[in-house]
Amino acid sequence: MTITLNNPLDMHLHLRDEDMLKTVGPLSSESFSAAIIMPNLVPPVATKEALIAYKERINSVCGSDTFTPYMTLFFKPTYTKEFLESIRDELTAIKLYPAGITTNSEGGLSGFDVDELRMTLDAMSELEIPLCIHGETNGFVMDREAEFVSIYEMLATNFPKLTIIMEHITTKESVAALDKFENLYATITLHHLLITLDDVAGGMLQPHLFCKPIAKRPEDREALRKVALEGHPKVMFGSDSAPHPQHAKEACGCAAGVFTAPIALQVLAELFEEHSTVEKLQDFISNNAQKIYKNIEVPNKVITLEKKPFTIPAKYGEVVPMFAGEVIAYSIV
Amino acid sequence: MTITLNNPLDMHLHLRDEDMLKTVGPLSSESFSAAIIMPNLVPPVATKEALIAYKERINSVCGSDTFTPYMTLFFKPTYTKEFLESIRDELTAIKLYPAGITTNSEGGLSGFDVDELRMTLDAMSELEIPLCIHGETNGFVMDREAEFVSIYEMLATNFPKLTIIMEHITTKESVAALDKFENLYATITLHHLLITLDDVAGGMLQPHLFCKPIAKRPEDREALRKVALEGHPKVMFGSDSAPHPQHAKEACGCAAGVFTAPIALQVLAELFEEHSTVEKLQDFISNNAQKIYKNIEVPNKVITLEKKPFTIPAKYGEVVPMFAGEVIAYSIV
Repeated sequence: MTITLNNPLDMHLHLRDEDMLKTVGPLSSESFSAAIIMPNLVPPVATKEALIAYKERINSVCGSDTFTPYMTLFFKPTYTKEFLESIRDELTAIKLYPAGITTNSEGGLSGFDVDELRMTLDAMSELEIPLCIHGETNGFVMDREAEFVSIYEMLATNFPKLTIIMEHITTKESVAALDKFENLYATITLHHLLITLDDVAGGMLQPHLFCKPIAKRPEDREALRKVALEGHPKVMFGSDSAPHPQHAKEACGCAAGVFTAPIALQVLAELFEEHSTVEKLQDFISNNAQKIYKNIEVPNKVITLEKKPFTIPAKYGEVVPMFAGEVIAYSIV
Repeated sequence: MTITLNNPLDMHLHLRDEDMLKTVGPLSSESFSAAIIMPNLVPPVATKEALIAYKERINSVCGSDTFTPYMTLFFKPTYTKEFLESIRDELTAIKLYPAGITTNSEGGLSGFDVDELRMTLDAMSELEIPLCIHGETNGFVMDREAEFVSIYEMLATNFPKLTIIMEHITTKESVAALDKFENLYATITLHHLLITLDDVAGGMLQPHLFCKPIAKRPEDREALRKVALEGHPKVMFGSDSAPHPQHAKEACGCAAGVFTAPIALQVLAELFEEHSTVEKLQDFISNNAQKIYKNIEVPNKVITLEKKPFTIPAKYGEVVPMFAGEVIAYSIV
């Protein structure tokens, strides 16, 4: 069996910088046409200069002719309309991190006061810049995302013209919120379609499956699978592929992140085939995103997957991928 | 401030064997008068010969004059009354593991059929041998213990003269079960009084806090604290201190277990003092257990704790303890 995907898009990707960028960047450009690039470098990408310079570093590694980095800024409530207009052509979205919620998010937002956010979010609404949000409170780890839904709803209500993307959703509560507000959308990762907390901590502890938001309950995974596999128009694929060197994962104080970029399409093909919904994969992997992000350009790239066993490498550089060493059913040809 | 404890007992302890026993055994005998010794060696302790030989190995390491190992057998539904009578003098309890539920439990019980269990449990009831149970189903990791409560209740109802100890309880559901059945008791660990899943996986992943049952929700910890700190007569301290070498904890596929034996009394003193219930610590650490386990003998040992800072070593041999490198308020003098 052969599956052809037009312009697969990864709408949530960590490419990091320097040596790590050189390791992982080409792996994304082999699979994807383009990707939303997360801005949580140290320091975060928060100026036009930093954004353009980072884009150039990515292009030099990934090849600008076959892979388009959709650049994002690290959200700050001090961004003016004037500033955003000046950077509009370089910018695809703005990513909002609550302070301290995940890797390199220390400079994030420490509260959600509508009046404080109004200037920037009104400008984003006018300029049609989507707001991508890591939606977790600082509550109990299994409740953080569900608790954040009320903040999504508050933002969706107060800024009805703002496109709000709930990033890497992991709960049935977030799935339910999708249909309540016209301007709420979501990305879903590969790993959250596959695993629950049982896979992370139910047997032996598996640091390579530890991520933020943490994988939740079986019923949460079911809710995510339902909307992904039916190609729900408000849902897009975003890998949240997040590389860390092996020594940072297999350690006391293991960093959060699952590395899936080079295997995501192949495993998604297998998952959609298992559920007899292969015909919906094109929507999930590209078409929905193109409609939600109105102004994005895509190269003209076709990825062909063939049902041919592929043994996932034990490591890419120093990074251990999800399913390291395992054999999966599809290969990119 | 000085706290004097008469015959502190650790009613759930893993001493392992060989080199590991030599590392950790003396640390338990420095703090405790006696301990219930878990039988999950490889192979499990399931014969009189194995039990006596293990006891002798422990005595040779820990010193039989100052530390009493309360020996246990690995539960099998084939133990006859005749066999149990023959071993009664050497035996303090029998430990039941559902198959595959934790470290070295592969030979455990694969179902809870009253008729199949009747011969052995009736004999244990008659001979007054307590049954210690690792109470988890093979369900979702956060639900396993709460799901098991119905099995505790089934056993408590069908074997009303059997003393049943719910080992290392971690949930409010298990706490609630305590008061429903006269013959249900429980041990509680130090770490489950202190941590929740947030400490294991809410920030960076902390393999040294990964254990089975996994630490649960804040409201579960509150329920455990309430009964421990009030010296509830059906609750005893059992550390479930479970040593693994550092390389087995900081790894892909980290083993379950928190090592607390050498710090448990000191940290318990601090916890009980913080909650102004120091006068209840003697019940929790010894008196309740002596009443629940009717036939146990205790040496005449007094442990004195002084409010004097103690820096927990980074390692004991190859084993990283809980709070490695941190300073705690109490020292054993």
